[in-house]
Amino acid sequence: MLKKFINDPKKVVDEMLEGFLFAHSDKVKKLSTSRVIVRKDAPIKGKVGLVTGGGSGHKPAYIGYVGEGLIDAAAVGEIFSSPSAQQIYDAIKAVNSGRGVLCVLGNYSGDVMNFDMASDMAKEEGISVEQVIINDDVGSGSKEQMENRRGVAGEVIVWKAIGAKAQEGANLEEVKKVAEKVNSNTRSMGVAHSPCAVPSLPYGGEPTFTLGENEMEIGVGHHGEPGVERTKMKSADEITEILMEKVLQDLPFKENNEVSVLIDGLGSTPLLELYIIYRKVAKILTQKKIKIYKPYIGEFFTSLEMGGFSITLTKLDEELKRLLDAPTNAPLFVHV
Amino acid sequence: MLKKFINDPKKVVDEMLEGFLFAHSDKVKKLSTSRVIVRKDAPIKGKVGLVTGGGSGHKPAYIGYVGEGLIDAAAVGEIFSSPSAQQIYDAIKAVNSGRGVLCVLGNYSGDVMNFDMASDMAKEEGISVEQVIINDDVGSGSKEQMENRRGVAGEVIVWKAIGAKAQEGANLEEVKKVAEKVNSNTRSMGVAHSPCAVPSLPYGGEPTFTLGENEMEIGVGHHGEPGVERTKMKSADEITEILMEKVLQDLPFKENNEVSVLIDGLGSTPLLELYIIYRKVAKILTQKKIKIYKPYIGEFFTSLEMGGFSITLTKLDEELKRLLDAPTNAPLFVHV
Repeated sequence: MLKKFINDPKKVVDEMLEGFLFAHSDKVKKLSTSRVIVRKDAPIKGKVGLVTGGGSGHKPAYIGYVGEGLIDAAAVGEIFSSPSAQQIYDAIKAVNSGRGVLCVLGNYSGDVMNFDMASDMAKEEGISVEQVIINDDVGSGSKEQMENRRGVAGEVIVWKAIGAKAQEGANLEEVKKVAEKVNSNTRSMGVAHSPCAVPSLPYGGEPTFTLGENEMEIGVGHHGEPGVERTKMKSADEITEILMEKVLQDLPFKENNEVSVLIDGLGSTPLLELYIIYRKVAKILTQKKIKIYKPYIGEFFTSLEMGGFSITLTKLDEELKRLLDAPTNAPLFVHV
Repeated sequence: MLKKFINDPKKVVDEMLEGFLFAHSDKVKKLSTSRVIVRKDAPIKGKVGLVTGGGSGHKPAYIGYVGEGLIDAAAVGEIFSSPSAQQIYDAIKAVNSGRGVLCVLGNYSGDVMNFDMASDMAKEEGISVEQVIINDDVGSGSKEQMENRRGVAGEVIVWKAIGAKAQEGANLEEVKKVAEKVNSNTRSMGVAHSPCAVPSLPYGGEPTFTLGENEMEIGVGHHGEPGVERTKMKSADEITEILMEKVLQDLPFKENNEVSVLIDGLGSTPLLELYIIYRKVAKILTQKKIKIYKPYIGEFFTSLEMGGFSITLTKLDEELKRLLDAPTNAPLFVHV
C-alpha cells in the first residue's frame, strides 16, 4: 500500500480543484456546472480556443497549463480516467469566441471516444472544432503502428506551441498545423522503477504494478501500462543510452537538427537524478551533432508518485523556437 | 532499498552539477576550483553579495535559486552534508563587489561551523561579511529553545526577499535586516510518511528512517530527523489542522495578518495532494481572518524522494510583499 495525504478517496479530485481555485483564481475559473478549468477571461475575442483534458493525477498537467499563452480550458477526469463527453463539450463551448476550437488529447481510447462525441455535439451547434491526437510514446508501439502509440510528455510541447500560436492570432487551420507539426516531430520514451497507486483505501492505495527489488520497466506508460522490457536496474547512463537510441532512431533525429529536450520526472524521482540523466542526454546529442535549443527538466506531466522519468525530443524549426520562447502566465508552467 | 537513477553513488553531486551547467550556463557558472555555483555576472557591481549553501539532495534548493533577483552563490555539499569552509569562503570572495556579503544558512551544526570559519577567513581579508541563521522549523524545538530549531523551507522565503532587496541596491545592513525580519516572521512544520535514501548501493540506498505500514512522523526534519510525534496515518485535513495549530500559535499569527503560504512537497508527494492540503490551510486561515497574500505550492526544498510535506507561513508587511513580488530569473524558482 502506498500512503497518501488525502481525505475521502472519492473526493480527491474535487478537493484538489477547490485548493487549486483558492490558489489560482486570479488566472482561472471553474465552470459552474461542469468540472472544467478555463482561463478567467475565456472566451477570448478573436482567438482560437484551445481545449485539452484527461484523467487526474498528472499534475502540472492538465489544469496547471490553463492560462494566457497556453491552453484555454482543461476538462478534468477522475484519477487516470477520461473526462466525460459532456465536460469536454462544456469546455469547447466555454472557449469558443467564433474563430473555432482546437482539441488536443493523448491517444487513449476513453479520451478519444469522449473527445469525438464532444466534437460532434459542438459541431451540431455550428462550432468549428478540429482535433489533434498526440502519440509521441515510442515505448507503446512500433513505427508501423503509430496509431497505437500513447500520448505522453510530448503533449506539453504541443500545448506550449499551440498556446503561443493561438495567442499570436493564427486561425484554426494554422493552429492545428502547428499541433500536427509538433506531434510528428516529437518522440518520447519512459522508464519506471516503482509504481504509483490510485487512492482507494482511507489514506492509501494499491500499487498499479509491481516490480522486483532490483527491477525496472523500460517503455512504461503514464498509468503503469507495460513497456517494451522488464530488466534489472542499470546505471543512469546505460538507461539513458537505451531510451535515447530508441527515441533518436524513430523519427529519426539527425546531425544538425535543433531540438528541445524534456526530461520529465514521473513523480518521486528527485530532480538531482533528472539532472544526471540530462547530463548524459546532452553528451549523446553533442556527440551526434544535434543542437539543444531548449531544455525542460523537472515535473511537467507526472503519474502521481511513480518513480521514473521520460525523455522527450522535439525537432524544432524557426517557428517552433519562437513559439516555445513566447511568454505564458499559466500557473504551473515552469519557465526556462 | 530505494532504487535510484544514478551512476557511481560517489559521483552523484558532480554529475548532477555537470547536467545543471549543461542546462543553465546562460545564467550561472561554476567556480573553476571549487564546487560553488555563482551568477554568471558575479560579482555584481554595487550590489551586496548573497551566499547560501548546504548539503545536496534538496533541489531546487540551493543552486536552482542562484540568479538575478535571488542568490548570487551557493556552495554545494555532498548529499545531506555541509559544504566545506573553503567552498563557502570561495563563494564569498566570488560575489564580493565591495559592498559586503550576506550569508544565509539553515541552523545545522556542520553548516554553522563551516560558515563561521569561512566568514572569519573572508573578514581577515577585509571583506564585510554578515550572517543570518534560519530556524523556522517549529517541529524541532520549543519556543524557549529557538536556537535549537532547524532551518527548513522558510529559507526559500528569506532568499526571495533578500534577493529582491539586494537587487534594489540596499546596503549590507538593510539586506541583513530583511533576512532577520523574514526569519522572525516565519514558522514551518512538516510531516512524512515515507523515507528518502542517500545513494549508497550501485543504484539505490538504504532508507534514512523506517515507519510502519500505516504510520507517519509529525515534525520530521529535512533529513529524516525525528519530529514531535509518530502516529497512525490521519486524513489530510486532520494532519493539516495539527500542523497549522502548532505553526499559528508559535509566532503567533493573528487576525488581520497578511501571510505567504508555502506548501512544500518533500519529494514524492503528488502535487494533487499538496493542493488538497492547501485547500484546508486556506479554509483555516479564512476562518481565523488571516489573509493569504501569496501561495507557493509545489517542490521548493525537497529531501530526495521523501514522502511528506511542510507548511510555512510568513507574516508580511508592505516591504516583504513588494520583495516577494519582484522578478527573478533563477533557473528553478517557480513564479506565482
